[in-house]
Amino acid sequence: MGRFVTIDDPEDPRIADYRAIRERDLVGRRELFIAEGEVVLTTLIASRRHRPLSLLLDASRVAGLAERLATVEADVPIFVATRSVIDAIAGFPLHRGILAIGRRGALPDAAALLAGLGDRATVVVALGIANHDNMGGLFRNAAAFGADAVLIDAASCDPFYRKAIRVSVGHVLTVPFARIAAEVDPLGLLAAAGFEALALTPSGGEALAGLEPAARTAALFGTEGPGLSADLLARTRRVTIEMAPGVDSLNVATCAGVVLHRLATAPRRA
Amino acid sequence: MGRFVTIDDPEDPRIADYRAIRERDLVGRRELFIAEGEVVLTTLIASRRHRPLSLLLDASRVAGLAERLATVEADVPIFVATRSVIDAIAGFPLHRGILAIGRRGALPDAAALLAGLGDRATVVVALGIANHDNMGGLFRNAAAFGADAVLIDAASCDPFYRKAIRVSVGHVLTVPFARIAAEVDPLGLLAAAGFEALALTPSGGEALAGLEPAARTAALFGTEGPGLSADLLARTRRVTIEMAPGVDSLNVATCAGVVLHRLATAPRRA
Repeated sequence: MGRFVTIDDPEDPRIADYRAIRERDLVGRRELFIAEGEVVLTTLIASRRHRPLSLLLDASRVAGLAERLATVEADVPIFVATRSVIDAIAGFPLHRGILAIGRRGALPDAAALLAGLGDRATVVVALGIANHDNMGGLFRNAAAFGADAVLIDAASCDPFYRKAIRVSVGHVLTVPFARIAAEVDPLGLLAAAGFEALALTPSGGEALAGLEPAARTAALFGTEGPGLSADLLARTRRVTIEMAPGVDSLNVATCAGVVLHRLATAPRRA
Repeated sequence: MGRFVTIDDPEDPRIADYRAIRERDLVGRRELFIAEGEVVLTTLIASRRHRPLSLLLDASRVAGLAERLATVEADVPIFVATRSVIDAIAGFPLHRGILAIGRRGALPDAAALLAGLGDRATVVVALGIANHDNMGGLFRNAAAFGADAVLIDAASCDPFYRKAIRVSVGHVLTVPFARIAAEVDPLGLLAAAGFEALALTPSGGEALAGLEPAARTAALFGTEGPGLSADLLARTRRVTIEMAPGVDSLNVATCAGVVLHRLATAPRRA
């Protein structure tokens, strides 16, 4: 059980890390992250990779969380405050009344992560995903459809941003992921690990509904507007989601959901 | 071509309808709606059901829109202002510099809308969808996968809310939809029109990947948390999206995308 500390003053220096978190997590303290809400807190407490440094709870939420708080290490402070003090600390109305600061575990090397996956594996590759909602949605869908890992290129946003974690329903903390260094060719990395790369194209690719993926498959998702570069598309197995005439785009997280459902249920080529 | 009117003063009474739109569309003037951005404006101008009452454009956007503005009726004012005047009018930085006020066409009766659809038809039914992003996502995915109509119960939010229209990429204006009155049983309405109702359940339903839908199929989508009521589920054909163990939920718009892709590509029962 962590040790409870009552906070009466929003200016208390002990909760300085929580002050004005809405602006603060934009500036990126890359080793720390904000966890918000009961599901994400529960995931953080249970995680072996990422650790809570402290919690900040609305006093009215403590009783309901007792069972989970019992598993928090003894040296982790559990700050408890009234709703109005918490809102004053956070700088906006925090409806869920549950915050934590976590320290992220070290990211694995991308090549090592791929090498360690099974003979039948699915990897999500995010290329230039700059929107935190979309990044969170990718992780949520990766978890939902049992993808084994997520790879993120240097142009993509940080999945540990508060809103991305929240939209992922905590799955940023559960799905193994790695960064692809800016100087590394994603397709070369995947090929070296025996992964076939799939990329979506609005027309002319194999129909998704009939797709038989390779045993080790990586699905690439790019930005919604420009999508993936022509050069990159030319070097992938191209797949087209069957859509109505005149409509050629889906939200990237929805797109990933549709593709990952097929990858999760389709027969695999040897 | 609409008639151009230059606006220099954010307090000009002629653009009163645009003032503080972020708060304004929350209060719901149900016959009007705000269209934002180039894609939605283009959809509105082309719509036969919904009509623009006026436009408010950043002066720097006018030249690029000339072709589309040429098809706006002559009595529709096209207000043109500098970026700073527009931001002052709207009450927040309006990055796209394109706004319009539209008047919505009359909604069809739900039973009449269903009766008019083809022998092979897909309908999306939104039950208690209170989040505007999710509502917009439902319409976007309905359009992407060629759904023929959307039905919305009395507990769902207004799809004509600015953000829902924007997230739908304008498809709130293109997909036929109707409201189900509070006193009407959605399943009775669907059955009377010969539609089989599908509902999602986390486990125990038919696997989505093998689903053979009826020729006329309605897919029901409820709120993310509680989902559809047990009573309602018991009266539907229940379908389960194959998900990883321990994960039992998807964002409702993603969920609709996955289901509608199957409905668009599956063989249909007679």
